[in-house]
Amino acid sequence: MIRLFAIATLSIMDHNSRLQRTQAAIEQLRLDALLVSHLPNIRYLCGFTGSAGVLLITARDKALLTDGRYTEQAKQEVKAAKVKIVKKSALAAAAEWLQRHPRLARIGIESSHLTVAERDSLAKAIGRGTKIIATAQVIESLRVVKDAEEISAIREACRLGVDLFRTVTSRMRPKITESQLAGELELSARQAGAEQMAFSTIIAGGQRSALPHGRASSAPIPAEGFVVCDFGVILAGYCSDMTRTVHLGRPQNEANSAYQAVKEAQQAALDAVKPGTTFGAVDHAARKLLYNRGLGKFFTHSTGHGLGLEIHEAPKIAAAQKEVLRPGMVITIEPGVYLPGKWGVRIEDTVAVTETGCEILTPCPKDLLTL
Amino acid sequence: MIRLFAIATLSIMDHNSRLQRTQAAIEQLRLDALLVSHLPNIRYLCGFTGSAGVLLITARDKALLTDGRYTEQAKQEVKAAKVKIVKKSALAAAAEWLQRHPRLARIGIESSHLTVAERDSLAKAIGRGTKIIATAQVIESLRVVKDAEEISAIREACRLGVDLFRTVTSRMRPKITESQLAGELELSARQAGAEQMAFSTIIAGGQRSALPHGRASSAPIPAEGFVVCDFGVILAGYCSDMTRTVHLGRPQNEANSAYQAVKEAQQAALDAVKPGTTFGAVDHAARKLLYNRGLGKFFTHSTGHGLGLEIHEAPKIAAAQKEVLRPGMVITIEPGVYLPGKWGVRIEDTVAVTETGCEILTPCPKDLLTL
Repeated sequence: MIRLFAIATLSIMDHNSRLQRTQAAIEQLRLDALLVSHLPNIRYLCGFTGSAGVLLITARDKALLTDGRYTEQAKQEVKAAKVKIVKKSALAAAAEWLQRHPRLARIGIESSHLTVAERDSLAKAIGRGTKIIATAQVIESLRVVKDAEEISAIREACRLGVDLFRTVTSRMRPKITESQLAGELELSARQAGAEQMAFSTIIAGGQRSALPHGRASSAPIPAEGFVVCDFGVILAGYCSDMTRTVHLGRPQNEANSAYQAVKEAQQAALDAVKPGTTFGAVDHAARKLLYNRGLGKFFTHSTGHGLGLEIHEAPKIAAAQKEVLRPGMVITIEPGVYLPGKWGVRIEDTVAVTETGCEILTPCPKDLLTL
Repeated sequence: MIRLFAIATLSIMDHNSRLQRTQAAIEQLRLDALLVSHLPNIRYLCGFTGSAGVLLITARDKALLTDGRYTEQAKQEVKAAKVKIVKKSALAAAAEWLQRHPRLARIGIESSHLTVAERDSLAKAIGRGTKIIATAQVIESLRVVKDAEEISAIREACRLGVDLFRTVTSRMRPKITESQLAGELELSARQAGAEQMAFSTIIAGGQRSALPHGRASSAPIPAEGFVVCDFGVILAGYCSDMTRTVHLGRPQNEANSAYQAVKEAQQAALDAVKPGTTFGAVDHAARKLLYNRGLGKFFTHSTGHGLGLEIHEAPKIAAAQKEVLRPGMVITIEPGVYLPGKWGVRIEDTVAVTETGCEILTPCPKDLLTL
């Protein structure tokens, strides 16, 4: 009970500070209000986990609008903002409220999340006196640096991920289907308390390992060859993400060399992670090593991405990205090589940027495991 | 092999006809092109199942734009449209293509799916000579009536759902957690070939059965009380959806009466389903019965929804909806009553509207099962 209470208190404190920082951003953008409609942003700012709602923030007020399905839940979860239970859609109710407050003349919307139809119906409802301003990444730019509580939540989710990888390797054998393995992993995740998987589990064996997005299928695990295992859970709202590639049977020289190259490329990128380094430089560290081994053209995606309340968040760890890493960012480092029709290898960790380098949140051996 | 081939041929024929009907709609809207960005709509029109792409349709052309991750997959899946593999985002590539075709002056977008930011970047890229027209429900209005192939796919998915319910009841016992039951159901679904679940599985026991959206939690199944089981799979792209409520131990009179009332309300709504009946009348049939039993105020959601490639599609089977049922529509009929803090009951079938009434796609007993 005491531990739970402590967490709850922390959350409240933090929501207040997140909302204050949002209000500062609103002022800087010379907005009179910001309409937050993206659910992960709403959860970040006030703790609400329901599937429908909008958060309306002005210089003085913070109100979550949601419907009757969430009366109890919103009351329990939301302490740092008022809760208004509305009869119509939350967006329509927000428009009505804004219409009654004509002094709020410049209303920010989240342009990457609101649809054109939603924007148009909002504009129609609030009338001509009010201007709708398209904003971008206002809350996302706060979310990109995680606080201690968030990193701790991601660490826990990643620990569960590492445990689940052991489950997968203990059950992996020729002929079991990818889907069966994925299902057993997901059942274990649920047994361990995961809310849900963070994305469709990838178990891709043999030739299918060459598909960077080869979701677990009904294909059987082959007697010989690579199997890429890429999966994540959501625990207490936060995502984990990790990939390990194992080999059934003894790998041929070419496959073994490629595995070692990916492992070294991944380490090179990890070594590059520290405050002040550009995202592009981290990507380059992995890419350069693979180019030097003649595998550059088979590394067909970027090196990593941020994660937190969502599985894909800013920043993007990709070529030519000039922004720099900051302590508290949580990113994946996941180079891979894919030889179409043959096989693929990917190794991925989730790491938190520290003051001096990074903490690997997915501690799990990377020497080639042959089963 | 022959069966697979036959299915593939059918699909091709159908994509052609769907695209032709879309072209007719484009002409009627006096558009020069329609930019389809909603992935289920893209899948419906041309069969592409990737996670990124746009489909550009003009009077003469049909082209799917997607990126290098999907080269092989798009080639295999898409026969009724050209495939263009692009280096940048599909939307940016579509904008460039439109810029090179200034004669296409009126471009329709899907306003319920394109974000404000996407619309703005599209507008910027294609320049001032071209007008962007917000369209609504163009493809959705085709999708609302399913063809025989689609109904057959939904029927198969629903059959799997019925099998899975047997799995759930065979494993249900006091103290097993909701999450464990849900995990076992989901593993069975995978073993039977489901691509994924259609939505977060609901297993909600005891007091939690009173939450209409009570996703499976770590709560144990109680020794006595209702357990609501609401789940669906995706098989070959199409969703199933069904709910049964079982009772552990012997139900008290009040609970038993409520169960019988929901069962009768569900039957009354099923009896109302036939071509020409308004969606509102179907809702009313269920609602009236529950009102007459004094339970009306506890029926807090609408009676049902369409489903197909998505779990929630048009139509909405709700009060005051004046549109009428047509043969080929596939809808759920799912009245429920929820007594906060006590318990809840919901019974749901998926049905296809026929020429004379409906076919229940989820044939599964509805007498109260006590375990």
